[in-house]
Amino acid sequence: MKRGRAPLPIPSWIARKRDGGALDDASIRALIEGIADGTIPDYQVAALLMAIVLRGFSAHELLTWTRAMIASGDRLALGAVRGRKVDKHSTGGVGDKITICLAPLVAACGVPAPMLVGRALGHTGGTLDKLEAIPGLRTALSPATFVRVLKRCGFVIAGQTERLVPADRALYALRDATATVESVPLIASSIVSKKVAGGADALVMDIKVGRGAFLPGRAEARKLARTIVELGGRLGMKVVALLTAMDQPLGREVGNASEVAEALEVLRGGGPSDTRALTVRLGAEMLVLGGACRGVDEGAHRIEAAIASGAGLERLLRAVALQGGDVRVLEHPERLGRARHHALVRAPRSGTVTLVDARAIGDAATMLGAGRLRKEDRVDPAVGITLHAREGTRVTAGEALCTVWYNDGSRWQAARRSLGPAFRIGGKPSGASSLILERIE
Amino acid sequence: MKRGRAPLPIPSWIARKRDGGALDDASIRALIEGIADGTIPDYQVAALLMAIVLRGFSAHELLTWTRAMIASGDRLALGAVRGRKVDKHSTGGVGDKITICLAPLVAACGVPAPMLVGRALGHTGGTLDKLEAIPGLRTALSPATFVRVLKRCGFVIAGQTERLVPADRALYALRDATATVESVPLIASSIVSKKVAGGADALVMDIKVGRGAFLPGRAEARKLARTIVELGGRLGMKVVALLTAMDQPLGREVGNASEVAEALEVLRGGGPSDTRALTVRLGAEMLVLGGACRGVDEGAHRIEAAIASGAGLERLLRAVALQGGDVRVLEHPERLGRARHHALVRAPRSGTVTLVDARAIGDAATMLGAGRLRKEDRVDPAVGITLHAREGTRVTAGEALCTVWYNDGSRWQAARRSLGPAFRIGGKPSGASSLILERIE
Repeated sequence: MKRGRAPLPIPSWIARKRDGGALDDASIRALIEGIADGTIPDYQVAALLMAIVLRGFSAHELLTWTRAMIASGDRLALGAVRGRKVDKHSTGGVGDKITICLAPLVAACGVPAPMLVGRALGHTGGTLDKLEAIPGLRTALSPATFVRVLKRCGFVIAGQTERLVPADRALYALRDATATVESVPLIASSIVSKKVAGGADALVMDIKVGRGAFLPGRAEARKLARTIVELGGRLGMKVVALLTAMDQPLGREVGNASEVAEALEVLRGGGPSDTRALTVRLGAEMLVLGGACRGVDEGAHRIEAAIASGAGLERLLRAVALQGGDVRVLEHPERLGRARHHALVRAPRSGTVTLVDARAIGDAATMLGAGRLRKEDRVDPAVGITLHAREGTRVTAGEALCTVWYNDGSRWQAARRSLGPAFRIGGKPSGASSLILERIE
Repeated sequence: MKRGRAPLPIPSWIARKRDGGALDDASIRALIEGIADGTIPDYQVAALLMAIVLRGFSAHELLTWTRAMIASGDRLALGAVRGRKVDKHSTGGVGDKITICLAPLVAACGVPAPMLVGRALGHTGGTLDKLEAIPGLRTALSPATFVRVLKRCGFVIAGQTERLVPADRALYALRDATATVESVPLIASSIVSKKVAGGADALVMDIKVGRGAFLPGRAEARKLARTIVELGGRLGMKVVALLTAMDQPLGREVGNASEVAEALEVLRGGGPSDTRALTVRLGAEMLVLGGACRGVDEGAHRIEAAIASGAGLERLLRAVALQGGDVRVLEHPERLGRARHHALVRAPRSGTVTLVDARAIGDAATMLGAGRLRKEDRVDPAVGITLHAREGTRVTAGEALCTVWYNDGSRWQAARRSLGPAFRIGGKPSGASSLILERIE
C-alpha cells in the first residue's frame, strides 16, 4: 500500500470471487497492478488464485485480466525483424524438451521464432531450467539482445525479461507452490499475455492430455485450447492448438541437462521417435502459420530436411554462442554432467510394460530436485530419470525400467515412493494410441 | 523445512483438498505442525485455507484437524480453580462488546469464567483490541498470571498465550486478510481448539445470524452451531449454542474504546437495551452450565441482581487493576479518548429507519481503522461510529443517523462509501424481530 492512498479492499474482492461473483474491470486492474508491483502480499494473491481455480472467470473477466497483465509491463517491439513471428508453447509435460530442437529448425526454414519460456512448474519441467544446464548460457536477455539474437539466428529462446508481464512472473512463481496451476483461465491468461507482450504474431499451442498433463482430461484440454484460440484472436494473435498425448513421458530423458542432450540428438537426426515426431509436426504447423509453406505435409518435409542438412543444429550452436553458452559442451553432450549417484528401478517380473505414468515420473523427478516444491527452491540440473522401457516394451524380470540420477540420498528415498507405482507390467495397455489427438483453430 | 528432512509434499496436499478429496490424519498433523512452527509459508497456508473454505472437511478430518491444533501447543491447567469453568464465545458481530460486561457478572454469581478472546476479524471487532483501549492493560498473560487473575476475580479475559494453540494464532491472522474466515469447519475448529486448550469445561456459543454475521444465513449458522456442539462433545466439552440476530449492530457504539465505555454502562445498570438483554441471557446460560442455578430464568434474575448490586462492576475493576490497566479511566469513561475529528451522517428525509446494515457499518469501521485490512495493520482504538438511530427509530430529514469518529481524512472518505447505503428510511422493516432466534444443544 502506498502512503496517503486509501487501502484497497483486497479481502472483499477475494471474497467476491470465492462466492462465485465476477470481478469488475477496475478491481481486476488494481489486483494485477498490485500483484505486479508486489504491494499485495503473496498470501492474499494465493487465496485469490485458489478462489479463481475453483470459481473460474467469465470470458469478459478473462479478457480484462489478460489485458491488465499485458499492460503491467513492456511489450517487445519486433518490427525490425522481417516476417510473421511464430511462437510455440506447451502446457507442460514430463520430458518435453521440444522447444530446444524445434525453434532452430523452424528458423532454419525461414520463419522467425521468438520463444519466451518458463521454469519448472509442478511435476513438469521448464525449458528455462533445462537451458541453464548449458554452462555460461544467459537466458535473461535485455530486449535489445533478444532482438539481436533473433535477427542473427532466426530464433531466440529466453526467459521473460523483468519488465515483460511482471504480473505473470509473480503469479507463476506462486502458483506452483500453492497448487493453483490447474486452471483454464489462469493458464490461458498466463500464456496469451506473455505471447502477445513478447511480440508473437501467431502461436502453435501444444496442449498436453493424459496422466502427466496439468489438465489430464480431454474435455478440459479442449476447453483450454478453445479458450486460448479465442483469447488470442481477441488480442490479434492467430492460434492453432494441437492436443497431444502425455500419458507417459515424452522421449527417454526426464531432467534438465539430460533433456538438452536428447534435444541435440534430434537435431543430429536421432533421438527417440516420439520426441522427433512431435518436433516435426509442431514445426510444420509453425511454418504454415509463418506463411513459409501451404500445408503441414510440406512443412514436415522442410523440417526433416533441416534436420538432415544439419541447418537446425548449426542455428542452435550459433544462438548458444551468442548467449554466452559453452558450445563445446553441446558438441560433446556427455560433458553436460550427471548426478553423483544413480540407482536402477528393475522389473519385478517379465511381461509387456502397459503403464509408464508420466505424473509419477514427473513427481519423482521433482522430488530429486529437477523441479520445485517451494518457489524458493533451486533446481539441480544434473539429477533426473532415464527411461529404458516405454509402454509396449517387453521386459524380463530384473531388467532395468529406468535409471535414477541423484545427489541427495533422502531425496532419492522420497522419489522412490513415486516410482514404485509408476510402472505396470501386464494387463491392458493404458495410454493413448497416438501422439497427436486433435487439432483446434 | 528442516535440514536433512525430506521436504513435505505440501502442494499435493493442497491439490487434494482443492479437488475435493479428504486429507489423511498424517497429512493433517504435518500441516498443522508446519503452520504452528511457521515452516510452511503463508502463501501455501492461504491457498490451503481457500480450498478448505470451498471444499469443506468431513467430520473425521475436522476432529483430526482440531486435535492437531490443540496438540500444537500447551493446555492451560485450571485444576487449582474450583468449580466448572464456563467460557462464552461469539462468532463475531458488529458492536459486540458483551464479553467485557458478561464475564465479571458471571464471576460475581459464583461461576468461574476464563475467557480467551481474539482480535478484530473481517468487518467485526475483537474483544482483545477493545480491551487494549484501556491504558496500561496487559492482555498477553502468562499461564500463572491467567490462573491468578481467574482465582482472585472469578474471571479473566486475555489473549491466547504464545503457547496456546499456536496453529490457530497463525491461521487467525491470515484468514482475515485472505477472505477465508467464512467456513464452518475453520470457525468450529478455531473456537473449539482454543476453548479446550484453555481449560473450559463448558461453553456458551453466541452464533450471529444476519447481515453483519460471517455466516449471514440461518441454515449455515445452525450448521455451525451443530458442528461446534458435536465437536465440543467429542472432545469432552459441553456446548450450548444460541443463534442471535446480527442484522443491525449490537448496541450504540462500534469501535474499540467506545465499546468499552458501553460495556461499563451496562455494568452500571444502563446501556442500550439489546446489549443489556443479550448480556443477561448469555450470563443465565453460563450459570446453568456452571451448575449455579437450575434454569435460565433463575440465572437471568441472578445476573440482573449482580448488575444492580454493582458486584459485576467491582469484579471488572479488580481484574483491570490486576492486569495493569488504568482503573480511573473506567471510572471516567470519557477519558478513554475519542478520535480527533468527527462527521455526521444525516437522514436524507423523514420517516422510519428500516435498515441499519451491520455489515456496512462494520466495513466502514474497519476502513476507519477500528479493524484490519491486512494482518500487519494496527487498530486505532479511538475511531468508530456512534449510532443515533436503530431499526424502528423515527427520524426527521437532516437529523444525525450516526457520528463517525476518525483520525485520517482519506480513511473517512473510504468509510463514507460504505455508510451511504448502510441506512434505509421507509419501506418494509428488514431485520429480525427478536434478538434470540434459536437454542441448540
